[in-house]
Amino acid sequence: MQVKERNTWEVLRDHLAEGDSTALNEYLSELSGEESLRALMRLDADEQQLIFARMTPESAADVFEFIPDESAGDLLGELSPEVAASIISEMPSDEQADVLSELDDEELEDILSYMDDEDVIEARELMAYDDDVAGGLMMKEYFSYPKTYRASSVLRDLADREEEYELNHVLYIYVTSRGGILQGVARIRDIIVAPSKARLADILHPAEAVVDTTKLDELENFFDDHSISAVPVVDERNRILGVVRRRAVYDAVAERADADHLKSQGIVGGEELRSMPTIVRSRRRLSWLSVNVLLNIIAASVIAQFQDTLSAVIILAVFLPIISDMSGCSGNQAVAVSMRELSLGIIKRADLFYVWRKEVVIGIVNGAALGLLIAVIAWVWQGNGWLGLVVGMALAINTVLAVSIGGTVPVILKSLKVDPAVASGPILTTITDMCGFFLLLGTASLMLPLLTGV
Amino acid sequence: MQVKERNTWEVLRDHLAEGDSTALNEYLSELSGEESLRALMRLDADEQQLIFARMTPESAADVFEFIPDESAGDLLGELSPEVAASIISEMPSDEQADVLSELDDEELEDILSYMDDEDVIEARELMAYDDDVAGGLMMKEYFSYPKTYRASSVLRDLADREEEYELNHVLYIYVTSRGGILQGVARIRDIIVAPSKARLADILHPAEAVVDTTKLDELENFFDDHSISAVPVVDERNRILGVVRRRAVYDAVAERADADHLKSQGIVGGEELRSMPTIVRSRRRLSWLSVNVLLNIIAASVIAQFQDTLSAVIILAVFLPIISDMSGCSGNQAVAVSMRELSLGIIKRADLFYVWRKEVVIGIVNGAALGLLIAVIAWVWQGNGWLGLVVGMALAINTVLAVSIGGTVPVILKSLKVDPAVASGPILTTITDMCGFFLLLGTASLMLPLLTGV
Repeated sequence: MQVKERNTWEVLRDHLAEGDSTALNEYLSELSGEESLRALMRLDADEQQLIFARMTPESAADVFEFIPDESAGDLLGELSPEVAASIISEMPSDEQADVLSELDDEELEDILSYMDDEDVIEARELMAYDDDVAGGLMMKEYFSYPKTYRASSVLRDLADREEEYELNHVLYIYVTSRGGILQGVARIRDIIVAPSKARLADILHPAEAVVDTTKLDELENFFDDHSISAVPVVDERNRILGVVRRRAVYDAVAERADADHLKSQGIVGGEELRSMPTIVRSRRRLSWLSVNVLLNIIAASVIAQFQDTLSAVIILAVFLPIISDMSGCSGNQAVAVSMRELSLGIIKRADLFYVWRKEVVIGIVNGAALGLLIAVIAWVWQGNGWLGLVVGMALAINTVLAVSIGGTVPVILKSLKVDPAVASGPILTTITDMCGFFLLLGTASLMLPLLTGV
Repeated sequence: MQVKERNTWEVLRDHLAEGDSTALNEYLSELSGEESLRALMRLDADEQQLIFARMTPESAADVFEFIPDESAGDLLGELSPEVAASIISEMPSDEQADVLSELDDEELEDILSYMDDEDVIEARELMAYDDDVAGGLMMKEYFSYPKTYRASSVLRDLADREEEYELNHVLYIYVTSRGGILQGVARIRDIIVAPSKARLADILHPAEAVVDTTKLDELENFFDDHSISAVPVVDERNRILGVVRRRAVYDAVAERADADHLKSQGIVGGEELRSMPTIVRSRRRLSWLSVNVLLNIIAASVIAQFQDTLSAVIILAVFLPIISDMSGCSGNQAVAVSMRELSLGIIKRADLFYVWRKEVVIGIVNGAALGLLIAVIAWVWQGNGWLGLVVGMALAINTVLAVSIGGTVPVILKSLKVDPAVASGPILTTITDMCGFFLLLGTASLMLPLLTGV
């Protein structure tokens, strides 16, 4: 007999019911981050609160690392401020700021009131930055020493602070002059092998640094071009403010790509998990859908102008959704390639004509192929070659138009600082629908005797 | 007067024309990886060959790091095998295997014939693995020493091999027993601070390792749960084969997400840059489009069954593309959320009913809202409340259907080992189109007297 394995969240529920915190913590520590996340998302809000209240703050913080920021904020907002504060205190400062930014003001102040003064100051400093600049991505856990320090004193200090040291996998220490001005960097390894009387000034290398307003894209390029695992962040006077880890930058880039994909598919805000409240999920999806339904009605109103033609050749109604859908498909392929080339940095505003030129060739080839295909099908099916000609030409021309719009619109939107992930799709489909319907029905009107004369 | 800045590729062209390799290499070394890539993609094939022939192999290898694998393979295939081999030899072994895998057999053998025997053996070993398992992601540059070695000998050996050492930012050395069986790991730092007579056996820590067949998803989980920067790869007898870097795993995950997005938008194979040959780009896009046009015709043939109804109420033709498009939008939102939850590991095959339950609620709420909206618009526009009712009901019911299909189909496809990124969209739109057309026109047929009676 096959024994059905019990779901992880059912086991968690049992541990909750038994009230055995030790067993609960032990079970959770055996789950991977992904498994813990899956289990948590399946529990209801009350159960989640109970779990976090019974977990050690360290292991709760470990789990939070895997929860997308917005969901993490929602969860923390539901916990008692004291429990939330104890969990947040165990996170590295860059993650602290990310989840705290998701809270509303009241929740935030409640939670901050339970945190250490030093953590609160750091968190407020980090939250003052946008998410996608060096200041918003940096962490405050770094080691800096005046350049007059001796290697041996640094080693002693590091040994005393071993716990922090482990936490951050620190590889570098930063060397400053009076007022915290960044002077250079030294690897832990360099300090270990240095003569113990050596001063940091003798060991340091010049440090690459970024200012706090450096954008995510530039940080990505920086780490692509420099093989260091963290870069110091400085203010305009070159005072060290924090450290951005390579990993934080790549994580942020991946999150942005994920969000762009969701936005391009109509999830406003770029974030949804099915564990979120129905009202939030519904509202986000609906705000996009309701704009689209209006754009759709505007586009389809073109059809209403040709009711006489349609009455005369009713079979044209079959081809209206096909033209609309196929043009959308062709255009979205071009949108997807442009979005990718934009994110790889291969195309910029100046390359608009290049993009269009490259798309138009594909549009002509694919438009001809698709137009021919549908023309033959229409001809064979309805026994009217003229119908095939009208449908095929409309699809062929509209395909050229669709790829031209699909390729260039994301580039234009980006240069206008409108989010191309959100707006490209609706703009594309509205224009191609209108043009496609007009092409099909307009040509059909002109050729009406040929179409009905069978 | 404003001086127009010259494009990077124009500057490269000039350097080529002048035949000044030094100036060319200097200029390229000042460009970021992203800028070099953008410039290269804008040169034609002959110019690219000339550039790579004149660049130092080291800097060419640096540029190749930023070129997506498939394009990199195309480029290498066009270079002389000798030049290609000299560039590839400068890449780390994991990248070597990735680009070599993109070549066809003849190109591959030509290039391998110019490479060192040792590199060739390593490359063949790595290429024998799939791209998405530990064996295919590992690199062969790692340091392992027998456990009987003394710390001082290890340090001396490392110093002799400093160049390799810098290349790989090695943090760990692996300790083996006879036959290369992995016994443990030691950090460089541990070795430096160890008494010089100490043997590795005294310093080593137990090593976490993965077998060569470990899948990418499991590797991602591994690195999520372990804060090390590289993991040793072993065979089934625990012999060390190589090392997978955290960065290689995260890069592979990001590439897969990118490819999934492109595939979901109809770029077959998940890879297109506009610098690729037109024939390749056209073929990939067309293979998806031609399947879609056939599915579209099947779906739209439902409309042909209701020609009499359409003739009687010709305005229904306006609403056919709207129903089709809006159902597609609603369904694709659900697809996008499922794809994301699958990639986060939050949902699995067993969660199908959970997904459906969560979607159906959204479908009912959003379907009611959208249905009401379009019903009112149809009513006001055409002055027929029954028309509004028919259109609104069709959209409302079809929205519930669309989110149910959109949410569950990716989960089902994944469990059937069919790529959900490629197949979810076409399956969704075909079914929702057929049902939507049937709902609208079927109900209209039943209520025909009410619709025409105005």
